[in-house]
Amino acid sequence: MSLDDLVRQIGSLDESAMQAARNRQDSLTKPQGSLGRLEALSVQIAGITGKAAPQIQDKVVIVMAADHGVAAEGVSAYPSEVTAQMVLNFLNGGAAINVLARHGGVRVVVVDMGVAADLPHHPDLVSLKIARGTGNMVREPAMSREKASAAILAGAGVLETELARGLDVLATGDMGIGNTTPSAAIASAILGRNPAEIVGRGTGIDDDGLQRKIRAVEQALERHRPDPKDGLDVLSKVGGFEIGGLAGTMLAAAAHRRPIVIDGFISTAAAMIAVTIAPASRAYMIAAHRSQERGHHLMLEWLGLDPLLNLNLRLGEGTGAVLALPLIEAACKILNQMATFGQAGVSEKASP
Amino acid sequence: MSLDDLVRQIGSLDESAMQAARNRQDSLTKPQGSLGRLEALSVQIAGITGKAAPQIQDKVVIVMAADHGVAAEGVSAYPSEVTAQMVLNFLNGGAAINVLARHGGVRVVVVDMGVAADLPHHPDLVSLKIARGTGNMVREPAMSREKASAAILAGAGVLETELARGLDVLATGDMGIGNTTPSAAIASAILGRNPAEIVGRGTGIDDDGLQRKIRAVEQALERHRPDPKDGLDVLSKVGGFEIGGLAGTMLAAAAHRRPIVIDGFISTAAAMIAVTIAPASRAYMIAAHRSQERGHHLMLEWLGLDPLLNLNLRLGEGTGAVLALPLIEAACKILNQMATFGQAGVSEKASP
Repeated sequence: MSLDDLVRQIGSLDESAMQAARNRQDSLTKPQGSLGRLEALSVQIAGITGKAAPQIQDKVVIVMAADHGVAAEGVSAYPSEVTAQMVLNFLNGGAAINVLARHGGVRVVVVDMGVAADLPHHPDLVSLKIARGTGNMVREPAMSREKASAAILAGAGVLETELARGLDVLATGDMGIGNTTPSAAIASAILGRNPAEIVGRGTGIDDDGLQRKIRAVEQALERHRPDPKDGLDVLSKVGGFEIGGLAGTMLAAAAHRRPIVIDGFISTAAAMIAVTIAPASRAYMIAAHRSQERGHHLMLEWLGLDPLLNLNLRLGEGTGAVLALPLIEAACKILNQMATFGQAGVSEKASP
Repeated sequence: MSLDDLVRQIGSLDESAMQAARNRQDSLTKPQGSLGRLEALSVQIAGITGKAAPQIQDKVVIVMAADHGVAAEGVSAYPSEVTAQMVLNFLNGGAAINVLARHGGVRVVVVDMGVAADLPHHPDLVSLKIARGTGNMVREPAMSREKASAAILAGAGVLETELARGLDVLATGDMGIGNTTPSAAIASAILGRNPAEIVGRGTGIDDDGLQRKIRAVEQALERHRPDPKDGLDVLSKVGGFEIGGLAGTMLAAAAHRRPIVIDGFISTAAAMIAVTIAPASRAYMIAAHRSQERGHHLMLEWLGLDPLLNLNLRLGEGTGAVLALPLIEAACKILNQMATFGQAGVSEKASP
């Protein structure tokens, strides 16, 4: 399948399912609107799935890993070898995302999109390595336009494989030392904002490192001048393989009418790529949390998304997205399981 | 037991358990501090429980119901009969709190603290009716000082009964037509703020009703002049039986070293009564969410609590508190289940 075909499969939300969900919410034994964003979420998920009574059973977090040539500029507090080490930690069940996924009954799918190391064969590791890390965007494009497209389509393929195993909601996650730098570059390019407004401390870099990181993003944008209207151009010049892969999972989830729960800074950069390529995909997205990372709120604002959680996270891996899933399940259960005023014999609001 | 005895049982947090939890958090395979408030929550719960590796198994929401004489002033969009009708809805499992509690594996305990109706005997209903609704605070004190004390001690008794059945975390909830009015009066009195800054639309009253509601709170405060330093005085003059009962559950939870998850506007008013009576209880509290109701953020600010969820709720019943429980469980599981850098063979942060 081509990227154009994928984009063409993304439809708009189902208005009649949304209206049915709204009507049902208004008949339930609570003041209308009193469950706030839980009510709005249930209506959105009705529109996404096309079902007036949507159910969330199979929850999946897809965690995509890759390395970044720009790490050579000293933009991270951790060495690049940590990307591969953390993939092994995921496979062994010891990372934060594993703990949170077990807690929430969520299936974890780990994907090597471009780790700069040979990873062992493992039944739980999906190997789709596009290359051993990106080029250093300060000196060259991160990847070719062909590889950018291949990363997106590979991500879409992962989503389709997981759909076949059962997937009612997609949570996105990332691992890649240095990847807040390309994410900040993507956001700066698409938002048309100064990198200093977007770049943050990532895993915890010091003041000198922060200045190097801002300068690296500035240099990359000056050198490549990515077209902010062309998501593939932005991804190829200043992106990353896991970011492209995540954008692909999002486009495929939208095409297959599944809600997409976006994690933090890197996942949100991927969402911006996806929406630039296919604006209709935005309606399928839910923002889990607002990250500590500097420009994240500007990115969410551009996407028109209001985060559900206020936890000051900055880990990635999909941790924030998985923490938000119980709220999304709860929204659907409220719609499906609460008694109506008529059923419960509760008096309705007094007429004015 | 007297109220003084209860207050004396409340100790401070366990510093050595907190330090052990902090040290463990810093050894886990993630950048230090990257799980933000989840890390802080785990440290707080270590301090509350006195355990460096606290576990949350038994989760309980105590929903206290009562009626309010001030409803006669036309301060609610719903008739008072709805309080009793909703108690029956709770017992039949059809209300929002039932759906959310089933979703989260939380035990629901429904308590009649002062409903103005005869409720049927039911195995799941705890009957501790202090009176059939409070006095109308615009004309008389809501209750005597003796009844205020009795409500608090009755609430403490409910907590102790539930402790015996297993309770690792307390979530609080309320039901009582008209109860945003006494809650706003309590907050105005303790904060020393104009009622117009605190009073909101509750279940959805119109503009005229909002003005009546503000005026009712102003009149009650002018008539009774409660002493903001004396929680029992505030509760007796402008409070409610479910609010006193909830304050009692909170004081007893603190005395027994259990975390307290506060729901919305009414639960927060109860928390303000509890903290006014026993300032040490504050350290045991966690704010679940910021309500839509007008003055709620000022009340949370006075308590020094930052809410976890951003859902625009205004239902009560404990719905927001129960929605926050998975985050609290997750915080403890992160502490207990993640691999350390040493265990996982992951490189630590590069030295500066």
